[in-house]
Amino acid sequence: MSVVDVNCDLGESFGVYRLEVDDQVYRYISSVNIACGYHAGDHNVMQTSVERAQAYQVNIGAHPGLPDRMGFGRRYMDMEAREVYNLVVYQIGALQAFIHLHGGRLHHVKPHGALYHMGAHNSTIAEAIAKAVYDLDTSLVLYALAGSVLVERGRKLGLTVAEEVFADRTYQSDGSLTPRSQKNALITSSTEAIEQIITCLRTGTMRTVTGTSIHLQADTICVHGDSPQALGFLQELYNGLRAEGIRIGM
Amino acid sequence: MSVVDVNCDLGESFGVYRLEVDDQVYRYISSVNIACGYHAGDHNVMQTSVERAQAYQVNIGAHPGLPDRMGFGRRYMDMEAREVYNLVVYQIGALQAFIHLHGGRLHHVKPHGALYHMGAHNSTIAEAIAKAVYDLDTSLVLYALAGSVLVERGRKLGLTVAEEVFADRTYQSDGSLTPRSQKNALITSSTEAIEQIITCLRTGTMRTVTGTSIHLQADTICVHGDSPQALGFLQELYNGLRAEGIRIGM
Amino acid sequence: MSVVDVNCDLGESFGVYRLEVDDQVYRYISSVNIACGYHAGDHNVMQTSVERAQAYQVNIGAHPGLPDRMGFGRRYMDMEAREVYNLVVYQIGALQAFIHLHGGRLHHVKPHGALYHMGAHNSTIAEAIAKAVYDLDTSLVLYALAGSVLVERGRKLGLTVAEEVFADRTYQSDGSLTPRSQKNALITSSTEAIEQIITCLRTGTMRTVTGTSIHLQADTICVHGDSPQALGFLQELYNGLRAEGIRIGM
Amino acid sequence: MSVVDVNCDLGESFGVYRLEVDDQVYRYISSVNIACGYHAGDHNVMQTSVERAQAYQVNIGAHPGLPDRMGFGRRYMDMEAREVYNLVVYQIGALQAFIHLHGGRLHHVKPHGALYHMGAHNSTIAEAIAKAVYDLDTSLVLYALAGSVLVERGRKLGLTVAEEVFADRTYQSDGSLTPRSQKNALITSSTEAIEQIITCLRTGTMRTVTGTSIHLQADTICVHGDSPQALGFLQELYNGLRAEGIRIGM
Repeated sequence: MSVVDVNCDLGESFGVYRLEVDDQVYRYISSVNIACGYHAGDHNVMQTSVERAQAYQVNIGAHPGLPDRMGFGRRYMDMEAREVYNLVVYQIGALQAFIHLHGGRLHHVKPHGALYHMGAHNSTIAEAIAKAVYDLDTSLVLYALAGSVLVERGRKLGLTVAEEVFADRTYQSDGSLTPRSQKNALITSSTEAIEQIITCLRTGTMRTVTGTSIHLQADTICVHGDSPQALGFLQELYNGLRAEGIRIGM
Repeated sequence: MSVVDVNCDLGESFGVYRLEVDDQVYRYISSVNIACGYHAGDHNVMQTSVERAQAYQVNIGAHPGLPDRMGFGRRYMDMEAREVYNLVVYQIGALQAFIHLHGGRLHHVKPHGALYHMGAHNSTIAEAIAKAVYDLDTSLVLYALAGSVLVERGRKLGLTVAEEVFADRTYQSDGSLTPRSQKNALITSSTEAIEQIITCLRTGTMRTVTGTSIHLQADTICVHGDSPQALGFLQELYNGLRAEGIRIGM
Repeated sequence: MSVVDVNCDLGESFGVYRLEVDDQVYRYISSVNIACGYHAGDHNVMQTSVERAQAYQVNIGAHPGLPDRMGFGRRYMDMEAREVYNLVVYQIGALQAFIHLHGGRLHHVKPHGALYHMGAHNSTIAEAIAKAVYDLDTSLVLYALAGSVLVERGRKLGLTVAEEVFADRTYQSDGSLTPRSQKNALITSSTEAIEQIITCLRTGTMRTVTGTSIHLQADTICVHGDSPQALGFLQELYNGLRAEGIRIGM
Repeated sequence: MSVVDVNCDLGESFGVYRLEVDDQVYRYISSVNIACGYHAGDHNVMQTSVERAQAYQVNIGAHPGLPDRMGFGRRYMDMEAREVYNLVVYQIGALQAFIHLHGGRLHHVKPHGALYHMGAHNSTIAEAIAKAVYDLDTSLVLYALAGSVLVERGRKLGLTVAEEVFADRTYQSDGSLTPRSQKNALITSSTEAIEQIITCLRTGTMRTVTGTSIHLQADTICVHGDSPQALGFLQELYNGLRAEGIRIGM
């Protein structure tokens, strides 16, 4: 039986503002990415998120983002590589402290939002992200958009890289996600989303919006845990993978 | 020859705003307390502050503060113990990451501003601070106002505590500092300030504004490094201590 | 038929974080208090909140708070009167601009959370708040805890003051609200809450948790609009007041 | 005698962090642009900045920037036009309140840093800025990079636009400033800087780094007030303009 990682962004609440994931979700995922207080999350939320992740025995990842709480880290900001390096170090360190309290160990780092996409396309930014992760702990796994510059830079440094594929997003012929601003960006049918993942896992290729197929390695699948449909989708995905002889895990 | 620690707050710049300490200052201090991005400092400033501290081989301390950049962490905020615990953990973790990059090791933690004074007087807050430090690393030294509740709580948990005395502040009969809002809060004569320190080191007592003397243990002396007079004062202090056979160090 | 104002806090969303009030709520209230970007709200939320308030023709009030987004402005912060004055001015001004765009007019100011309670009990802070409102526009109505210092200071300056009473909170014998940290702080039965309001409106007195009654003038009733029960409660309140011959309005 | 406006950015301090302009500078300028609490400044700084500007009887302008205090509003952020509109409205409103307290009147609006350059080159952003200014007060003057898209959009809406020229920056052949990242971005000789301004005022043309000349209208000259050389430069500029029969004013 083969294995694939399923990861989910967590810990995105802030103060009185709640963006929470149903505890049931943890039964169907193997890894979580915890926000670190820049684009989302705060010191209280991080404490409870790490506690919960440890209780459910999922892999804990840091999910560092741009310093833009109002924009949820989704807006591109023009940043020097040196600053990207420093903000990744800061956020990983802050999360590591909470993990240490609970006797755990940081497993991976996945940049969030605009930082994720900047790292996917800009080699200088990609290098800054990968170097920050590597300099802190060479055993950390770097989660990056499958086929992107960040994958390549991470590997070049010697990091283990998990190539990430999205179930509910469509792909362009260059391997990038169709921007959310375009109509066909999202796959709303859960059946189609799961089919896209299974095809990718089986064949190592992904259909694109132009009709072509591109090579994509899928080490980890990103799912969204905060919608009302999340739990139902995860159950379907679990069953779909199982039918193909694929176990969720890492 | 006896030894006393001299510590200085550093890394308080933010973005384009500079609050810097002359490099010469490092020759006369043994420990620094680096701001961690809540009341002052940021990920870039922390990176360069740690680099400099390592270069000068001084003890590096975390200087966590309240989340109030505009008030520089000097304003009392009503906070639950649980949150104080979490914000201390977060800030220490962030700084530890930068120290780790430079092959160093966090030596101590000294709360900043309002958090320092809340910890000195409120036993619930003191316990939260001390517990956060202890839970992260039992070998860390806790810097606390000499004779305060934080000293007591830190020791009770098993932490090494450095009792801190101020050269340029006057003391009240209960051992607290005269608030800055009062006229006689500051000692402006460097001769008097140094005399106050030497008397305290020699006799273990401190004169108070009411004329009485109280018992105070001075393990570490706090000096301010960002005034134009700082360097001159530190040289005088160095010479004054040396004349008494006291070396700066830890 | 007599008239009473019913007011509701609004515009407390921030970025991707939603704290929204059902549009149906507007049918049962006469005034709204819009957050101004310090403790809650942001420039986008203010724009849409003002637009909606204008559409429903309710009185628009500014709801300035402390600069503590993470604590939702509910934590006491030690602040100089001068700064309280300035932060009230800033927030009112920002909201006035949005109201001006929509051809409206600011009707009142109601401080939020910790600032509300600081103004209710501390005469220096009360004066700073009242003076900021008065200096900007002498025709603004100041909403303040019934019977509090802020009522008195506002009147002394010459402002029209609306004394505010809470339907779902219990009162202490000094006229202050029972703190949320105490068990009996909230009235969970809607029948009791409405009875408390109607008694207060009819008799000008309020029963307290100690069993005594105190004199309280109720010019405006504060209701919370963001709970799932809010709409039901407002309908009950509307009917209860109507049965007493009291109309909601100002 | 002809007249030219000389403007200076002010009110950029924040909390304990000081970025101040010598009062003497006010003798040589006719307009100030006051930061509004997003990229720099805060409610206390705005209060004192407006007070000072009123005392020196210079034209007061709002200087709205991006919500990026750490980057001082100098980093490009990807923003929707609707949000740019809202953040300009918010910041203008906040400043207007302080001006109103001092019996003054807002004279102009000049976007800051990255927002200034985004408005100069992107017509959607330019329209959002100009529309926000226009919708708040059609009599406000819009300060914009001479020859830029923002000039054109402001005029199209019916605003009075002041085309701004820089004394100490070099120009590219498309009329944009040479980016600070390039070696020849700054003119360090005060003689050359003043000559550049006087030539532009006399001939309506500006020499560019490629050796060509472009047409540029100079209604207002931007000077920087916070360097140690600022006062000396302003005196030279004043004398240089006077020798040409040009008075500073508006």
